[in-house]
Amino acid sequence: MQRWKLIIEYCGAGYAGWQRQAQGVPSTQQAIEDAIFAFCQQRITIQAAGRTDTGVHARGQVAHFDLDYGTRSLSEHDLLMALNAHLRPQPIAILSAEKVTEEFHARFGATNKLYCYRILNRNAPAAIEDGRVWFVRRKLDVDLMREGAKHLLGRHDFTTYRSTDCQAKSPIRTLDRLDIEVMPYDEQGGREIRFYVEGKSFLHHQVRNMVGTLELVGAGKWMPDDVKTALEACDRTKGGPTCVPDGLYLMRVDYDLK
Amino acid sequence: MQRWKLIIEYCGAGYAGWQRQAQGVPSTQQAIEDAIFAFCQQRITIQAAGRTDTGVHARGQVAHFDLDYGTRSLSEHDLLMALNAHLRPQPIAILSAEKVTEEFHARFGATNKLYCYRILNRNAPAAIEDGRVWFVRRKLDVDLMREGAKHLLGRHDFTTYRSTDCQAKSPIRTLDRLDIEVMPYDEQGGREIRFYVEGKSFLHHQVRNMVGTLELVGAGKWMPDDVKTALEACDRTKGGPTCVPDGLYLMRVDYDLK
Repeated sequence: MQRWKLIIEYCGAGYAGWQRQAQGVPSTQQAIEDAIFAFCQQRITIQAAGRTDTGVHARGQVAHFDLDYGTRSLSEHDLLMALNAHLRPQPIAILSAEKVTEEFHARFGATNKLYCYRILNRNAPAAIEDGRVWFVRRKLDVDLMREGAKHLLGRHDFTTYRSTDCQAKSPIRTLDRLDIEVMPYDEQGGREIRFYVEGKSFLHHQVRNMVGTLELVGAGKWMPDDVKTALEACDRTKGGPTCVPDGLYLMRVDYDLK
Repeated sequence: MQRWKLIIEYCGAGYAGWQRQAQGVPSTQQAIEDAIFAFCQQRITIQAAGRTDTGVHARGQVAHFDLDYGTRSLSEHDLLMALNAHLRPQPIAILSAEKVTEEFHARFGATNKLYCYRILNRNAPAAIEDGRVWFVRRKLDVDLMREGAKHLLGRHDFTTYRSTDCQAKSPIRTLDRLDIEVMPYDEQGGREIRFYVEGKSFLHHQVRNMVGTLELVGAGKWMPDDVKTALEACDRTKGGPTCVPDGLYLMRVDYDLK
């Protein structure tokens, strides 16, 4: 039995998220499990670092699974090529397939996750990247958003910023990074605003609720300090809205064990 | 009668190119003309700087048209918003709508065009940007491609690098820029290779034929000097293949007249 670690890129549009659903509902997990089956005729369950929601993308999702390939040898390169061939034409690509020890666990071994959230801030909707950014027409003040973001850094009770459906036992999390970058998107003054969000783990909808709230700050609807007041209320109804999944990317998952 | 200049972004996938086709075949031109009709109930023909082929994208296509809006006033902002509203949910966005004088002509007034061609160079196919890059698995040597590209700069007979269906009277063109940049695409060693190609005008398939040839150089199938030998042959059969439209973007069109 060999444990394999996969690093996966996918477009979340068109999938009901990572997690396998009822028959006939497409999920990223199902698509990859089907590709494994097509390759070796084994029904294997794969375990991901994080179960991304419908419409959320990944540029570095990590998953693991155990494969009994008998006495035959299977190289990392051959598995990568085979899975990618079976995944075509779906918008899912295996970037790396690596043999790991049984101590490796994609979900429980993760020590850090990096998310990126992309806002397209201009008058015109997204065309080429429709579904891959959150289109916000009103002008956003990035400095104000950065001020608001500071209040979220560190260890807090994030009840205000987690989904009311969140299954996690504790609402306490530690946010290690929330950087906001801005860059030109086109030659007509359109801008892209990127949030880089990092921590060991996140609550359900936490990133999207934080970004949805900071957008209110950027638009001048909230003061930066309101982010803190809401946080301290420990009440979801005091937080800003959940923004669309389109702009969210799981970028990287880190492990102590390789 | 007011002449309008539009700057347009679109995803070429799903369209039979810019130019209006027979009934029922989607084109970018038709989609925009339909949006104008929905806005003002006038059937108006728009004229683009360049008729991009099926699957080719634009981040800065330019077009113009004349609109008789009677005695009512129409602001640039209102026209932009109206056209974008009528274009939804198609992957076409008007980035700018500007009143210009009748001396302005999107096609005949263009003094310079910038194209970008994007290659995704890694083991795994494109997922999030499928249809938006050319996926090349074999390792490409960018320095060799740059050496080959030098031979194409300047004024030449580009018969070798134009489509045999090209309608242009003369095969003589001046290539002002062919820069190749390389940047990381993912954290697993995947790279993006970008060609920036600039000149007053181009022959049919010229950019894709040049990039398709330089890819052979990067792969070590051609020597850099072979690009020159092929150019001098003035024979399409001596050139490299036409690469896919997926990676091609019309980035910008410049004019003397605003």
